[in-house]
Amino acid sequence: MSLVSVRDDEVDIVIAAIQPDLTSFLEEWRAVFSRFHLIIIQDPDLKEELKIPSGFNYDTYTKADIQRILGTSNAVTFSGYSCRYFGYLLSKKKYIISIDDDCIPAKDNEGNQVDAISQHINNLSTPATPFFFNTLYDPFRKGADFVRGYPFSLRSGVSCALSCGLCLNLADLDAPTQALKPALRNARYVDAVLTVPARAMMPLSGINIAFDRELVGPALLPSFRLAKEGKFRWETVEDIWTGMCVKVVCDHLGYGVKTGLPYVWRKERGDAVESLKKEWEGVKLMEEVVPFFQSMRLSPAANTAEDCVVEIAAAVKEQLGRIDPVFTRAADSMVEWVKLWKTVKTQT
Amino acid sequence: MSLVSVRDDEVDIVIAAIQPDLTSFLEEWRAVFSRFHLIIIQDPDLKEELKIPSGFNYDTYTKADIQRILGTSNAVTFSGYSCRYFGYLLSKKKYIISIDDDCIPAKDNEGNQVDAISQHINNLSTPATPFFFNTLYDPFRKGADFVRGYPFSLRSGVSCALSCGLCLNLADLDAPTQALKPALRNARYVDAVLTVPARAMMPLSGINIAFDRELVGPALLPSFRLAKEGKFRWETVEDIWTGMCVKVVCDHLGYGVKTGLPYVWRKERGDAVESLKKEWEGVKLMEEVVPFFQSMRLSPAANTAEDCVVEIAAAVKEQLGRIDPVFTRAADSMVEWVKLWKTVKTQT
Repeated sequence: MSLVSVRDDEVDIVIAAIQPDLTSFLEEWRAVFSRFHLIIIQDPDLKEELKIPSGFNYDTYTKADIQRILGTSNAVTFSGYSCRYFGYLLSKKKYIISIDDDCIPAKDNEGNQVDAISQHINNLSTPATPFFFNTLYDPFRKGADFVRGYPFSLRSGVSCALSCGLCLNLADLDAPTQALKPALRNARYVDAVLTVPARAMMPLSGINIAFDRELVGPALLPSFRLAKEGKFRWETVEDIWTGMCVKVVCDHLGYGVKTGLPYVWRKERGDAVESLKKEWEGVKLMEEVVPFFQSMRLSPAANTAEDCVVEIAAAVKEQLGRIDPVFTRAADSMVEWVKLWKTVKTQT
Repeated sequence: MSLVSVRDDEVDIVIAAIQPDLTSFLEEWRAVFSRFHLIIIQDPDLKEELKIPSGFNYDTYTKADIQRILGTSNAVTFSGYSCRYFGYLLSKKKYIISIDDDCIPAKDNEGNQVDAISQHINNLSTPATPFFFNTLYDPFRKGADFVRGYPFSLRSGVSCALSCGLCLNLADLDAPTQALKPALRNARYVDAVLTVPARAMMPLSGINIAFDRELVGPALLPSFRLAKEGKFRWETVEDIWTGMCVKVVCDHLGYGVKTGLPYVWRKERGDAVESLKKEWEGVKLMEEVVPFFQSMRLSPAANTAEDCVVEIAAAVKEQLGRIDPVFTRAADSMVEWVKLWKTVKTQT
């Protein structure tokens, strides 16, 4: 890895507590999390009090805190996995990292425990190269460089705004795929980071991500909520929607998105066959969502992430709204989120 | 790897003989090459007779053969690395694989010798996915699949027309980079294959490639020749040019390009500092070449690789011709190549 100088207090780790007892989760991560500040958001649907082991520097937020900030509005919902977005809203740090509470540190091909936080920070604090593909992956990694033919004018790269990590063991498949291949597990640790090229869309998994809040914070938003969404990832597509939203914003503002390292180890949870019915709605909607974001072009007037989100929301309403009410709700929620973002920033 | 059924007689391995003695090269590759037919093209600038060990099924072609086919035309030049294109012209097979004669089989992370031919054929005979990025790399690989959010309508993929392998040890850097970092070696074996997204351009290295001749053969062409080009890869950019040409053709015709596995082990050759002067021309020209290919769009009338190449040649002449005479020569050579390709196909 390249040497980077990011202070520990420039980072917030945001944890969505979908289950009340975070003891084993946090103990597994103690060695890598304990230097950083944690923002723990309790799923507002969760009644029990959170159990958090001592020795961590954290703030927790509950349904009461969410209601206090949200006021009377209910266009933005923070239940289930979406509760972590409340942490994104409150953070004042440059970098935010979020890892699902059913994941533990992975091991690399040499059996060493992966420091997911360092790897995410490294991804975010070294340049990205979205305008030409480097066949030897991340040119800023130790031992790597740009290959022959790579234009020198593009070698300084651009700021990296989003780092998408991956999962070992239970990969982030949809319920139909997991139900069809119940024994499928991801065992391959691919030791690479790459910049997703400009204008190429990809399905962001929210399980293990990091981003530069100052650059694209407002584009990481809870807006695409399925009617029958549940408490398992494969019953949701909110993160996939958000990912394409951020990617469009990054492409427009000239930032990069990286994918690859770090891996986390994802434990077993849920029953894919049970989830099949709920997931089917999300799977169908992707057929509309992907072409929409692929063809989305923002106006030159949109020069902040907030502006971009508002423009995307208008296009969602206009182009997708007539297909399904879920899109109209998403558009309203995006506009409301930007208002919330601005309000919270002004208050503090 | 997925199981694929490609017959041995559907493959030609094309070797450009830049040096006369191919004994050690072919002995290193015996286990993987010997089942296949080889087309060996002797660099027309090479005076000595080729030394080829017994036990291979091969045809060799020399300067005399090239002159016989070319006739009086000299718009297309087959000297140096470009001699392999003569083999592409003569092949009748579906798949062509070409590996430089300074490369030997690589070893994977477990120390097993890599079968570069099987891996290339696997890449070409399983679908590519250029229209949406799969974060877990090649979804057709054993143990892998499409991740959550990947539209089902895009999961059948498209035909893969080009497979770009990578190099261990001496990576394919340009002379300035290699001269600046003389000790830099590529030691990281990244166990992944991915489809380069549609509309993203990349610098193809011709060192270790395979392609579907029936789909894009005419787009693999010897046309971009630097005035002071020599006999080392880092003194040339012909393959980089060709790569962008094929990528534009694939994007237009709806085929995919994969990069990643297989690796080959590239031995030391040449003196980067000595080559610096020659390379500088290629490095400078890339600043024009990359934006040109990035913005290139072909007309709906172009529906074969031949048509596409002729359209690209016309645009090269018009848009780049006034910048440097190397571009006018390249455009003429592309047109001439398509004529040669058609002539050879008609004759046989």
